[in-house]
Amino acid sequence: MIHFQRPSKRNVNALRPVVISRHFTKHAEGSVLVEFGDTKVICTASIEDKVPGFLKGRGQGWLTAEYGMLPRSTNTRMDREAAKGKQSGRTQEIQRLIGRSLRAAFDLEAFGERTLHLDCDVIQADGGTRTAAITGSMVAAYDAFSMLVRQDKILNIPLKKFVAAISVGVYQGVPVLDLDYMEDSECDTDMNVVMTESGQFVEVQGTAEGATFDRPTMNRLLDLAHDGIVDLIALQKQVLDI
Amino acid sequence: MIHFQRPSKRNVNALRPVVISRHFTKHAEGSVLVEFGDTKVICTASIEDKVPGFLKGRGQGWLTAEYGMLPRSTNTRMDREAAKGKQSGRTQEIQRLIGRSLRAAFDLEAFGERTLHLDCDVIQADGGTRTAAITGSMVAAYDAFSMLVRQDKILNIPLKKFVAAISVGVYQGVPVLDLDYMEDSECDTDMNVVMTESGQFVEVQGTAEGATFDRPTMNRLLDLAHDGIVDLIALQKQVLDI
Amino acid sequence: MIHFQRPSKRNVNALRPVVISRHFTKHAEGSVLVEFGDTKVICTASIEDKVPGFLKGRGQGWLTAEYGMLPRSTNTRMDREAAKGKQSGRTQEIQRLIGRSLRAAFDLEAFGERTLHLDCDVIQADGGTRTAAITGSMVAAYDAFSMLVRQDKILNIPLKKFVAAISVGVYQGVPVLDLDYMEDSECDTDMNVVMTESGQFVEVQGTAEGATFDRPTMNRLLDLAHDGIVDLIALQKQVLDI
Amino acid sequence: MIHFQRPSKRNVNALRPVVISRHFTKHAEGSVLVEFGDTKVICTASIEDKVPGFLKGRGQGWLTAEYGMLPRSTNTRMDREAAKGKQSGRTQEIQRLIGRSLRAAFDLEAFGERTLHLDCDVIQADGGTRTAAITGSMVAAYDAFSMLVRQDKILNIPLKKFVAAISVGVYQGVPVLDLDYMEDSECDTDMNVVMTESGQFVEVQGTAEGATFDRPTMNRLLDLAHDGIVDLIALQKQVLDI
Amino acid sequence: MIHFQRPSKRNVNALRPVVISRHFTKHAEGSVLVEFGDTKVICTASIEDKVPGFLKGRGQGWLTAEYGMLPRSTNTRMDREAAKGKQSGRTQEIQRLIGRSLRAAFDLEAFGERTLHLDCDVIQADGGTRTAAITGSMVAAYDAFSMLVRQDKILNIPLKKFVAAISVGVYQGVPVLDLDYMEDSECDTDMNVVMTESGQFVEVQGTAEGATFDRPTMNRLLDLAHDGIVDLIALQKQVLDI
Amino acid sequence: MIHFQRPSKRNVNALRPVVISRHFTKHAEGSVLVEFGDTKVICTASIEDKVPGFLKGRGQGWLTAEYGMLPRSTNTRMDREAAKGKQSGRTQEIQRLIGRSLRAAFDLEAFGERTLHLDCDVIQADGGTRTAAITGSMVAAYDAFSMLVRQDKILNIPLKKFVAAISVGVYQGVPVLDLDYMEDSECDTDMNVVMTESGQFVEVQGTAEGATFDRPTMNRLLDLAHDGIVDLIALQKQVLDI
Repeated sequence: MIHFQRPSKRNVNALRPVVISRHFTKHAEGSVLVEFGDTKVICTASIEDKVPGFLKGRGQGWLTAEYGMLPRSTNTRMDREAAKGKQSGRTQEIQRLIGRSLRAAFDLEAFGERTLHLDCDVIQADGGTRTAAITGSMVAAYDAFSMLVRQDKILNIPLKKFVAAISVGVYQGVPVLDLDYMEDSECDTDMNVVMTESGQFVEVQGTAEGATFDRPTMNRLLDLAHDGIVDLIALQKQVLDI
Repeated sequence: MIHFQRPSKRNVNALRPVVISRHFTKHAEGSVLVEFGDTKVICTASIEDKVPGFLKGRGQGWLTAEYGMLPRSTNTRMDREAAKGKQSGRTQEIQRLIGRSLRAAFDLEAFGERTLHLDCDVIQADGGTRTAAITGSMVAAYDAFSMLVRQDKILNIPLKKFVAAISVGVYQGVPVLDLDYMEDSECDTDMNVVMTESGQFVEVQGTAEGATFDRPTMNRLLDLAHDGIVDLIALQKQVLDI
Repeated sequence: MIHFQRPSKRNVNALRPVVISRHFTKHAEGSVLVEFGDTKVICTASIEDKVPGFLKGRGQGWLTAEYGMLPRSTNTRMDREAAKGKQSGRTQEIQRLIGRSLRAAFDLEAFGERTLHLDCDVIQADGGTRTAAITGSMVAAYDAFSMLVRQDKILNIPLKKFVAAISVGVYQGVPVLDLDYMEDSECDTDMNVVMTESGQFVEVQGTAEGATFDRPTMNRLLDLAHDGIVDLIALQKQVLDI
Repeated sequence: MIHFQRPSKRNVNALRPVVISRHFTKHAEGSVLVEFGDTKVICTASIEDKVPGFLKGRGQGWLTAEYGMLPRSTNTRMDREAAKGKQSGRTQEIQRLIGRSLRAAFDLEAFGERTLHLDCDVIQADGGTRTAAITGSMVAAYDAFSMLVRQDKILNIPLKKFVAAISVGVYQGVPVLDLDYMEDSECDTDMNVVMTESGQFVEVQGTAEGATFDRPTMNRLLDLAHDGIVDLIALQKQVLDI
Repeated sequence: MIHFQRPSKRNVNALRPVVISRHFTKHAEGSVLVEFGDTKVICTASIEDKVPGFLKGRGQGWLTAEYGMLPRSTNTRMDREAAKGKQSGRTQEIQRLIGRSLRAAFDLEAFGERTLHLDCDVIQADGGTRTAAITGSMVAAYDAFSMLVRQDKILNIPLKKFVAAISVGVYQGVPVLDLDYMEDSECDTDMNVVMTESGQFVEVQGTAEGATFDRPTMNRLLDLAHDGIVDLIALQKQVLDI
Repeated sequence: MIHFQRPSKRNVNALRPVVISRHFTKHAEGSVLVEFGDTKVICTASIEDKVPGFLKGRGQGWLTAEYGMLPRSTNTRMDREAAKGKQSGRTQEIQRLIGRSLRAAFDLEAFGERTLHLDCDVIQADGGTRTAAITGSMVAAYDAFSMLVRQDKILNIPLKKFVAAISVGVYQGVPVLDLDYMEDSECDTDMNVVMTESGQFVEVQGTAEGATFDRPTMNRLLDLAHDGIVDLIALQKQVLDI
């Protein structure tokens, strides 16, 4: 293992530089640019004063997420999903994951008959876009709920627990934290972990792209993810000044 | 915990009765009806003598999966996806999972420029349809490759490792194996595990639907899944007479 | 004509073995597996307590049908309609035929503002899937209405007349009853007939695929169909114990 | 039956005034305006010098048909199918019928690797649009093939038999020929018949919209249709000067 | 410039023969066949007694337009948009233009909660279909509103100003009025102008297909369009007898 | 007119602050963030080494454009077009305009069988997104072609003329340059002008949203647009250092 080196020269347990910029665009109730190294995602949180049909009249709110990539956010231009007329399976899988993750962070019963729409749009991709999107959406959603509090529409931010997400994987046989594109495209195993500030799991999605993985590897990956998420949640709170 | 009882009265580590019936329909190269209790899925494996465009001329095969539910396989009738004109995000997520799982079982480079299509159609749903589909597809695919061997089109079945899948979850606070619909619809955490016969993970997908889950719970769930999958793979081999 | 023989060695006026199995799946109000030889179709009847918009407030019911084939119900795998995002013209034609046929069997005004959904899904195809679907749906619908009676939601089953359906055609110049796939794919003329228990026509759809047909042939085909349908309706009543 | 009168005062066996105008638009190889009373359909026949993929390299031609209604061809404006993004089941059923009918009229093997596209667009509807479309398409197709002969691309018009189509039905208990909209919308039984000049059937599609129909009624309807089609084919030949 | 000649031999400022035929089909409240030379468009105006959701309860009307071309209205057959399942960008652009133009002609606030649907269907195309459609729709809409007046549903036709439209362009370097297809397909600049009877612009859409154009050319094109539209509006009034 | 003031307090002939930032994202051959005041659009130019089917084998290139808005780029969240499964008429109209405009700037015959894809994605909208998109795309495309020159794939940038675009309109009766959203949503007339560096028009699209406009107003609007575009092209050249 002496000669093992990550393409980015990072330590196995090192995150890329993470930057979370609030108030990135002016219209949305919450608007964040989140950067995990060269991965850049705009996360906006929009409040709508109604809920989907299946929830009408029940006095509770809803939270949903959509995800997209600009056609040239990637190394090779992808077809535009709006032009093709459908979202790919991957896109749907990711936006369902973001929605579930953020629904674990907030108490849907405590913000009235409103919908919080999260829109996560990747403007530059370099691996880990879905975990960046979850981590940034947490802050955008928090800002949106803060505005509702300032507007006296709700008493408190309906926070259950902060959540953040990170990817871990096995690159050249070595478990590493926060894969960039070069690692991601060659790794054997890729795992996305969503965790709360109290260390509880919200989602664990591990996939053996190449070689399958054993239980000790899984444990090592979860350890790496745990420490990374602790750091991400500290950063979220710092940028929110709480 | 004295009064805890599963709706089915099963032990926490008990599978439902599992039946795998081969040669269920007559046209497909492999055709299996798999039953996990009241969950019934038809898995067919079809061989096509060509590969998708991105693989043409590379001398290797491809394996892909599709999944569907009959509209009244469920308690309440669902809209027919063909009539709505699109597959739901859930459907796409599941068929992508089945495809990845089976690609871990077989060596794509070893069966020529052919595509193996797996079609998993749920005729009756009672929880765990995706894990039943993976478990049954393993047998259907094996049968389809056996036919290629009998037809002298390939020398050996391109098997890497047997795989099977099972769900585990936390029901009323207790980790249990193989959730049926009554448990699934009320459980806090739901995890689907795909594993090889040598105990390596192919996929681990854990989701906190209600309460989040801690690391010891995760470990207990993986233990339960491990034992269940060992039994399922034994059954697969038994019905295949190998 | 001395040497004429059907591929199945059946007499020209012989049905294939027909089996109608009730309560085939557990969720639907009516659920039937109907088999015409190797053709196997699951017919479920689902009751929904509302009607389409154009009937709202008029106190009457509605009956509609959908049809599908599992991708590998056929000799060569067909594309999945849900994945293609549209139903073929053939599918729509068949499901419209099934709906019209069953609306002739029941009195829509006599079961309240409810919709009966028939879902006919072919799990194995060997010719005659649409006529099997109609014949099986009659029984599934009857069972669903029986349940409404048992639940005291309606007083009587809103039956007008039993209906059943059969295909007839000209195979190698000879009019025959109940074509299987080998006959169907080579026949000159194909006719589907839907008839009531009192010998009245509901639908007659004759198509000259190859050679056109004259009036005496048409008469002979209608005679064959008549006798076949009489037998099918007798079977329907027998399995329903009425 | 003394007081029976059709809304149009026609005899039971009387066609509406039928007009077939050739060369109606200038671009198409064949272009016909066909009028059955107030029903007006533009039928164009376009020759394309290639065949669909499934016929490539087999030296034979193909003939296909499409059908549409202008949104306000009907009494109440219908949604435009192009705007809705899909053709209705009815539209598909009709265009499949037109295609099959005309394929019975011409010898597909005798006009080279070409496709004849028939486009039948209803500009004013008053019942019987599909039978008018078939009857007019026969002339448009004949004109298109004549042009190929004049251009020395084929030696002869690949005619098998002239075909025409008419509707018959049971209106207020009486079998009548060529239903207009007032009759069609109230009739018990509606039957469309496509027949060749030698009296052979190409298609018979009878549907009991209201009351079912017995065998003698069916025979009477076929008699009426026979006589009507004989007249229509005479008219087709007259306008074509043959 | 001595040798310049338009393919049609028209003067640079000459319209093609324009014919506007009212009451072209029988069902629509307004129905016009408009011909600009060989370009023929059916324009129907349909009144519906409701408005789109965004206008409900505001006591005002709405006017909207749709446009289509029959597949063989053009020199080479185009795919049918209903069969392709989507309208092209060109189609949408044109129908939006027609809608905006006619909304400038009528006072939406003065005809109650009704929608006027304009359907412009090209049955033969030879350049200038969109300007013919606007010019014909003006008359069809006027007729439809007249019917509402006759039915005592509104007091007056909610007319603001008559509008008509014409194309101008630069053909072989020379500004000309009312381009036909031969000119249109080779012209450098193409401009569609919609103007009111008082000489005010509603729309000016100039596009440099080949060479860009300077300000004097633009002025000359607007002069040509002005004079053409004056003549078209005179014709509209003449056929309407006002 | 003494009290006339634009919401932004700008002079009638003043542009908003315009910023063009090159190399905004890292993957695209050309990537620009263009800002017209609060309107922000990412324009990427991607080179693909093939052309659409209709140009194959003709040795020339192609240039095409797509346009989108992030769902919350606007004041109220819009539905995501990829999720709805279709692009709106407005989107298609704009992307067709961008494509035509840029095809006027570059010589398609001079860059080989390649396609230049322009993707214009609005991340914040405040009026004038289409003109910002054209102005920014000019720079992105220039950068992309420069890269081809540096890579020795083409000898020179295939530039015909620089183009830029600006909106003008009549706000409270006064012709003004470069409308922001507050002006745009209330203006009577809106005109988008695309012009080359030599003062030739590429596109002029004027629409009377409210009141129609006369010829002198049109002239004044074109004067304003002319001066604005001269400034924009100067800025384009300055940021490109040419």
